[in-house]
Amino acid sequence: MGLTIAQKIIKQHLVKGEMIPGKEIAIRIDQTLTQDSTGTMAYLQFEAMGIDRVKTKRSVAYIDHNTLQTGPENADDHLYIQTVAKKYGIYFSKPGNGICHQVHLERFAVPGQTLLGSDSHTPTAGGIGMLAIGAGGLDVAVAMGGGEYYLIMPKIVKVNLKGKLQPWVSAKDIILELLRRLTVKGGVGKIFEYTGEGVKTLSIPERATITNMGAELGATTSIFPSDEVTYEFLKAQGREADFVEILPDPDAQYDEEIEIDLSSLVPLAACPHSPDNVVPVSELKGIKVDQVAIGSCTNSSYKDLMKVAKILEGKTIAEHVSLVISPGSKQVLNMLAQNGALSSLVAAGARILECACGPCIGMGQAPRTNGISLRTFNRNFEGRSGTPSAKVYLVSPETAAASAITGYITDPRTLGDEPKVEMPKSFLINDNLIVPPAENPDEVEVIRGPNIKPFPQGKPLSEVVVGKVLVKLGDNITTDHIMPSNAKLLPYRSNIPYLSDYCLTPCDPDFPKKARENGGGFIVGGVNYGQGSSREHAALVPLYLGIKGVLAKSFARIHMANLINNGIIPMVFENPNDYDTIEEMDELKIENAREQIEESDVLIIENVTKGLKYRMVLNLTERQRQMILHGGLLNLTKAKGMKI
Amino acid sequence: MGLTIAQKIIKQHLVKGEMIPGKEIAIRIDQTLTQDSTGTMAYLQFEAMGIDRVKTKRSVAYIDHNTLQTGPENADDHLYIQTVAKKYGIYFSKPGNGICHQVHLERFAVPGQTLLGSDSHTPTAGGIGMLAIGAGGLDVAVAMGGGEYYLIMPKIVKVNLKGKLQPWVSAKDIILELLRRLTVKGGVGKIFEYTGEGVKTLSIPERATITNMGAELGATTSIFPSDEVTYEFLKAQGREADFVEILPDPDAQYDEEIEIDLSSLVPLAACPHSPDNVVPVSELKGIKVDQVAIGSCTNSSYKDLMKVAKILEGKTIAEHVSLVISPGSKQVLNMLAQNGALSSLVAAGARILECACGPCIGMGQAPRTNGISLRTFNRNFEGRSGTPSAKVYLVSPETAAASAITGYITDPRTLGDEPKVEMPKSFLINDNLIVPPAENPDEVEVIRGPNIKPFPQGKPLSEVVVGKVLVKLGDNITTDHIMPSNAKLLPYRSNIPYLSDYCLTPCDPDFPKKARENGGGFIVGGVNYGQGSSREHAALVPLYLGIKGVLAKSFARIHMANLINNGIIPMVFENPNDYDTIEEMDELKIENAREQIEESDVLIIENVTKGLKYRMVLNLTERQRQMILHGGLLNLTKAKGMKI
Repeated sequence: MGLTIAQKIIKQHLVKGEMIPGKEIAIRIDQTLTQDSTGTMAYLQFEAMGIDRVKTKRSVAYIDHNTLQTGPENADDHLYIQTVAKKYGIYFSKPGNGICHQVHLERFAVPGQTLLGSDSHTPTAGGIGMLAIGAGGLDVAVAMGGGEYYLIMPKIVKVNLKGKLQPWVSAKDIILELLRRLTVKGGVGKIFEYTGEGVKTLSIPERATITNMGAELGATTSIFPSDEVTYEFLKAQGREADFVEILPDPDAQYDEEIEIDLSSLVPLAACPHSPDNVVPVSELKGIKVDQVAIGSCTNSSYKDLMKVAKILEGKTIAEHVSLVISPGSKQVLNMLAQNGALSSLVAAGARILECACGPCIGMGQAPRTNGISLRTFNRNFEGRSGTPSAKVYLVSPETAAASAITGYITDPRTLGDEPKVEMPKSFLINDNLIVPPAENPDEVEVIRGPNIKPFPQGKPLSEVVVGKVLVKLGDNITTDHIMPSNAKLLPYRSNIPYLSDYCLTPCDPDFPKKARENGGGFIVGGVNYGQGSSREHAALVPLYLGIKGVLAKSFARIHMANLINNGIIPMVFENPNDYDTIEEMDELKIENAREQIEESDVLIIENVTKGLKYRMVLNLTERQRQMILHGGLLNLTKAKGMKI
Repeated sequence: MGLTIAQKIIKQHLVKGEMIPGKEIAIRIDQTLTQDSTGTMAYLQFEAMGIDRVKTKRSVAYIDHNTLQTGPENADDHLYIQTVAKKYGIYFSKPGNGICHQVHLERFAVPGQTLLGSDSHTPTAGGIGMLAIGAGGLDVAVAMGGGEYYLIMPKIVKVNLKGKLQPWVSAKDIILELLRRLTVKGGVGKIFEYTGEGVKTLSIPERATITNMGAELGATTSIFPSDEVTYEFLKAQGREADFVEILPDPDAQYDEEIEIDLSSLVPLAACPHSPDNVVPVSELKGIKVDQVAIGSCTNSSYKDLMKVAKILEGKTIAEHVSLVISPGSKQVLNMLAQNGALSSLVAAGARILECACGPCIGMGQAPRTNGISLRTFNRNFEGRSGTPSAKVYLVSPETAAASAITGYITDPRTLGDEPKVEMPKSFLINDNLIVPPAENPDEVEVIRGPNIKPFPQGKPLSEVVVGKVLVKLGDNITTDHIMPSNAKLLPYRSNIPYLSDYCLTPCDPDFPKKARENGGGFIVGGVNYGQGSSREHAALVPLYLGIKGVLAKSFARIHMANLINNGIIPMVFENPNDYDTIEEMDELKIENAREQIEESDVLIIENVTKGLKYRMVLNLTERQRQMILHGGLLNLTKAKGMKI
């Protein structure tokens, strides 16, 4: 039977299990990446494993999140990562070199290989035909140590791209259309594999925009074929040797199929406050814009910014608009600085920010109170911009640039002829902000600033688990709710005690206090609990606060894995109506907890206060059961060596 | 008798008084500038005066301090300033357009005119032959309303520049040499007026570097002649119509004279933690550098950054160094983006930050704990970088660039031939980020975000003033000590209640608490109390906390004026030894306070606790006495109309 692209790569990397959707498999990881906000913790965990040097083909540590440096914490963390990377065989991308996903695509991503990254937008590299998955820092630490990566074999969804985009419609609109159709939970347990005649019309950065924001579907990952377009991109990066063709077999079998007629798409926008709240831009006409922000790992490539530069050339942004642009990488910035495009952007009135995530992660450029911000980013969760009352719309670079000129949300098709941007025949290659590992690791001293605190470690599961329901939450709770991430908190990612004061406070300001007063307890959530960013801190901080389990109607994949990795039990209501019978401060009790976790797919939990019993589905593999019993992956890893 | 340049300009603008050093004069103000961290308050005060439109020839509101925007406060303040400026006849320089002093020099400064700015580095415009003085926001508000500016007629110091700078020695080294000789209090009550054959060898940005950092001498201002170099600069800016030649009369009489032989100067550095702690760079050889920061209103001109670009061209910064560059203005950035120099900077590994004050005011890029940072800035006060333990060295762009390459403090003369940079024949002129005032003010609504709180207003002086000594401080207390200014606090400049929790906390963490518990009281300081930044908040916040007076051995000029403007009594020990007899929590009492302020040059204050009486010198003009009696300038202004 023929294989799809994803199946081919998985098959080549399969260590355990069978490629049957829903069954656990383990795959070998070729490459890893970390960014700095998840990286400090990942490297602390890696160090705790006592391994001399990474076992991957290539591991890269990026600095792109914490680059504002309003106190010593950021620079201390950078120095820790720089020195730990050098010692343990990891390439270090210095601050200023760019956003991890953009730089990885340019300089490191290899078609047909596997990439595990401690950032939820790691699937960006799927644009170049790599099987790229976002995971928790601990998973990445284990992979760096040579451990396999466990996941549930996803369903493969064929996304058949028909036709060709109309002028002014772009890759961002393709993924927004998918989000419109499927919602932020439509991709859970799935890999989106792009095929069809439309694929060859899309450049690598365009494909990467789509696979990047596949994360917003909740997908395991997204992937494009590796074809002649891929070859040309790699060649232009001086990396043609990394090329390998990967196409689906003609008789490949897909689990699902979706068709998108590219020629029928129009410019789209995701309205506040969810990436799937999508409408045509034309329906938003006339909304006054305070800020336009262009950049992020979704839309900050050379091609994206060249397009924006050509649209803005000779124009001036509206008087009431602040336009900020964060180029995706040093390569992009350098090319724009060389060819005059940057000059066009500056002349039009753009504020040029550093090559980093910046405003996409709320790291600066918060809009005004009640401000309207148009952003080419991937997430518009409430408050993520740094301004709780702001309204963020996600759009293409074309729509963003058009709106910056008029000052109102503007369909770019109203601008006349679309300027054309060609992909360069050769990119400007200069890796001098990438520090290679030391040849002699003994010469490297790892430097730990005062911001780096020990991380919490789980304990083996008790026979009886008792605790109160500390909070009852609704649907689609994001990791931004669980562990807020803003400019003030992000510098403390290596300082869990400090962060714990902010856990779930957007939902319940008293949650940390209640958790402390009750010695921990349980969280109750609705559908799609833990969507959004992959941040492991949304599990590490609850662990620190004594959270024993989360009861929900369903879980987002990465967050559920992070909970298990940290020994917190994720439980799904067999009967969703049971959710309605629970109230905050109800006391819950799990009898024979170890036996239930070890042997059953359904766990019985008693609501002592209400005198009810709930049947909770445990979507746990054998190995995950072991993690819960041992109190997390690190304990299990230590107990069994790297063979887990 | 012949006049100096400063005397000529003062004479032309004199409204009251005689030009006798030490006597109060009042001058007419042609232009004003504000930046955003002092501007919100200045415009609130201007609005409180009830005037329809500014009366100056040109007033400009800049946004350059609070540009990180980690919460809605910054953007709210920007919008307030943008709308209030538009309504009241003020030009608005949007965020991204650059640092106030750099942009003002490029686009607005006029030789022979007077400029009052709510920023201590306003004297930068002295480089172009303008009489430019830093003042509190309230003074600027009064000047915008057409009120004259009162100051003590300074002594005029002739700085005779002989010869010509050697290769690799630059304007920064000239002013560092003056700081080495005269210290941070050596310029108090003086105007430094540059003359001699060396003047014509210095371009306008070089002159502006010198006048800018004259602020660190404590000088009232510094000024260069307006000559053919000035003409060429204005012409290149398309502003030759603004040129007027201003040279000192051949028989001009100066109060003091200093000579500097330019040819004997070597590259210098101000060591931690004071701008006057100056040694030759060669003596610091071998100190490992973590960070190099280039920019600020001192050294971010086209010429500065072109020099850096040529030094870095084809090179790579040291592995352990982070190099950050903040261009001074959109004009500078745009020219560098056009001519390829920006590409050289990026290629070498520089992180390009926004055109703003940035790290100079601790707004980002804090070094690591205990980090060594080389900066082309003007101040290296302890903690100002955002990292309390960092060690900041102030150097020229040449020294900064050389050290970024080697990774160690490096005398640039070791690099071989110095690259040459010519001043451009024409600058790139594009003022599209400068918003002119509305033609019809009624159409403009001033928008006030929730960060804008009412400011404290003083009360008329009581007959008897009683209070405790809340804190006793040493010499050279800066306004950074009195009202700390860092990335976390700067967004709250329009929110005095919030800021008051941080008043004087670097000296005494309990000061705000003590002030509240005791219902206000007195501060005791040493020599040069209130040096540094002009921030009016160092008076407004103590006023809010109930501070009635400050007893010190001497005061920095601008801060003393700010205290008086806010109705707080500045008192100088007639016998400095009395300082030693005071302890914290001593109770002080001023009997017949109104009468003493009204009639005497010496005020008797009783130390009730110790049973002592102190004779305190009041350096008050008649008008200042009225301000103290009325409880500040605003009350006085309201009481008497604009004729004050």
